[in-house]
Amino acid sequence: MSKLKGNLVIGQSGGPTAVINSSLAGVIQEAMKHDEITGMFGMVHGIMGMINEDFIDLGKQDPADIDGLRHTPSAALSSCRYKVSPNEYEKILEVLKKYNIRYFFYAGGNDSQDTAKKVSSIAKENNYELRAIGIPKTVDNDLPIIDHCPGYGSVARWLAIATRDAGLDTEAIGIVDNVKVIETMGRNTGWITASTALAKEHEDDAPHLIYLPEKPFEEERFLADVDRVYKKLGYVVITVCEGLVDKNGEYITASSRAIDTDKFGHRQLGGVAIYLCDLIANGLKIKARWDKPGTIQRVSMVCASNVDLEEAYMVGKMAVKYAVDGKTDYMVNLVRESGKEYKCTTDLVELEKVALGTKKVPDEFINAEGNYVTDAFIEYAKPLIGGDLPKYSRLKKIPVKL
Amino acid sequence: MSKLKGNLVIGQSGGPTAVINSSLAGVIQEAMKHDEITGMFGMVHGIMGMINEDFIDLGKQDPADIDGLRHTPSAALSSCRYKVSPNEYEKILEVLKKYNIRYFFYAGGNDSQDTAKKVSSIAKENNYELRAIGIPKTVDNDLPIIDHCPGYGSVARWLAIATRDAGLDTEAIGIVDNVKVIETMGRNTGWITASTALAKEHEDDAPHLIYLPEKPFEEERFLADVDRVYKKLGYVVITVCEGLVDKNGEYITASSRAIDTDKFGHRQLGGVAIYLCDLIANGLKIKARWDKPGTIQRVSMVCASNVDLEEAYMVGKMAVKYAVDGKTDYMVNLVRESGKEYKCTTDLVELEKVALGTKKVPDEFINAEGNYVTDAFIEYAKPLIGGDLPKYSRLKKIPVKL
Repeated sequence: MSKLKGNLVIGQSGGPTAVINSSLAGVIQEAMKHDEITGMFGMVHGIMGMINEDFIDLGKQDPADIDGLRHTPSAALSSCRYKVSPNEYEKILEVLKKYNIRYFFYAGGNDSQDTAKKVSSIAKENNYELRAIGIPKTVDNDLPIIDHCPGYGSVARWLAIATRDAGLDTEAIGIVDNVKVIETMGRNTGWITASTALAKEHEDDAPHLIYLPEKPFEEERFLADVDRVYKKLGYVVITVCEGLVDKNGEYITASSRAIDTDKFGHRQLGGVAIYLCDLIANGLKIKARWDKPGTIQRVSMVCASNVDLEEAYMVGKMAVKYAVDGKTDYMVNLVRESGKEYKCTTDLVELEKVALGTKKVPDEFINAEGNYVTDAFIEYAKPLIGGDLPKYSRLKKIPVKL
Repeated sequence: MSKLKGNLVIGQSGGPTAVINSSLAGVIQEAMKHDEITGMFGMVHGIMGMINEDFIDLGKQDPADIDGLRHTPSAALSSCRYKVSPNEYEKILEVLKKYNIRYFFYAGGNDSQDTAKKVSSIAKENNYELRAIGIPKTVDNDLPIIDHCPGYGSVARWLAIATRDAGLDTEAIGIVDNVKVIETMGRNTGWITASTALAKEHEDDAPHLIYLPEKPFEEERFLADVDRVYKKLGYVVITVCEGLVDKNGEYITASSRAIDTDKFGHRQLGGVAIYLCDLIANGLKIKARWDKPGTIQRVSMVCASNVDLEEAYMVGKMAVKYAVDGKTDYMVNLVRESGKEYKCTTDLVELEKVALGTKKVPDEFINAEGNYVTDAFIEYAKPLIGGDLPKYSRLKKIPVKL
């Protein structure tokens, strides 16, 4: 195989995460090892940077800054949620040619993998040789086929720690603030919410109830669940997905404003925790309050998972290796090796198999009552958060004897 | 002075924090050095534990667990928001006598200092010798006289980190999610919200606008502020206090449910960020979303300030030392020493001077426009968060030249 000589572009798309810059660092540092890659350009705001010819020269950065990306959250190139339309195809082809771009990397979720596929098709249909590789990234963890998505381990660690801390808070002051509802991200799947279960070390620890969009919400069962835990412990910690749906598949809460709908037709979610607090206050006459950490959960570097950071870096490096090896139209896939020790390696999955697909939390990970996760889920998720949570003390309830 | 021999009780009251258990560890570890303190009892749920004779024997705990309290968030003894009523005074006196309690320590905010004062008065009026010392604790940082309150430095560090991370998120994806509003805690004062300014390293960094309850909220000025920043940067990050008030001093948002009002008459706050997002969407026709980390901000150990942890431990130890020295009816005070290097020592302030008082953010800490803090505030708050924020990379905007 003859070497394909030319420039590389990379873009970041969708919601920023704690580790997407690690993937960027992986791409840059690997690309520097390959002579056939003559220049490296970063698309500003993802594919919009391509269309607008808005690039950052990544080859002229301070190497220390590139290395520092491995511990810098958010998306250093800036991101977007932009659906390429057919009237922009010609412009994209023109830019590919003008900048002699032969390597195209795009990090994101399913919408982004679809964008990578489109760019590749445009090149192919015009006999322009291009290697296009998708880099998986989404805190939602909902890409098909892949074992888990870079970004997920870190949001899971953040939520495990936050839920444990907020749970201890409610345990201490639950006689006043009886119920706490923590609303997590998760558009159509409950992966993020499920990860709050990693906070639990002992049977009565928070969270006590977990509600995922995979199971339609039923008000009566919910109130019965809360009442049961409250009667047992005197307080309740609930985690719920922002994308919770009713039995008709409708979001419990979603903005109806046109301004709150993105180019892919996704509506802004948020507020389901308030709805649940109202149900509890009215239905059970106990006090409920809510936390909604929002975007803070997805970009926190201080709680980033080491496993996640390493894997995000690895998928960036491997994307370049695969492309240099002649591969195109694939996304880098994370494959969990069998064996007792957790280990992931990479292979490739066709872009068309992941583009626009969504992997829901499977039934085997959700309990029969639909209000918690199973041990199988814990086994799946625990290695991803990169080690145990910080160790805390607990006083023994030794009574005073006079 | 003859030694006062007897048992010690300690209680934790009000909202849990990252460091109130450090104060507990300080009390226990110091008390073990003094022969006149014959036993150590922890009140379960603060003063309620006293009234209900619900104590944990702190002298029989594993020393490693006591040491571990220094890195365990929330309130290990369990907390309360309980206003002692006159018909409980007799019971309190009875318990003091029955358990031979001679040392009374109570950690909390202004309501809690008032409780300590009451218990002391009950003893005094009945000629029962008791040393009662208040231990300062409140994330709200609103106790009078004291330089700052243990708990504040840690919530400030948490918010500085979270605002910086969430700010980078908006910087990256602000072309889609134009405005982010982060709602912080703070019942009647803006200390917590003000601390988000510690996220800013460069002029255009988040937060761009900060709204405190010390300055009545005006809708028109607010929209003009947001519009100005949006036109300059293309995105806006706003932090706002949950206790924001209008020009009549009324909360912008507070629960009107009876169940949401505590024994001190405080109503549950929360939701002002949603109100601001609605104003922005309707008034400026740009998309706004909100984060409300809620109780997570106040109990996070992973972001706890080392300075705060040390000082919380110190005020616990000093409380015991002062009591053994014969002091009573005081709260331990933190005094900032003059000089370039930050240093706090302790002295005492009369309980009656801090009980029920509230220190608002002074005018010198708020800018003339009422939408940000001053350099004087930064100088005040920066040493409290215990060192710089983690270092991040930023790529240089070097354009691609063909």
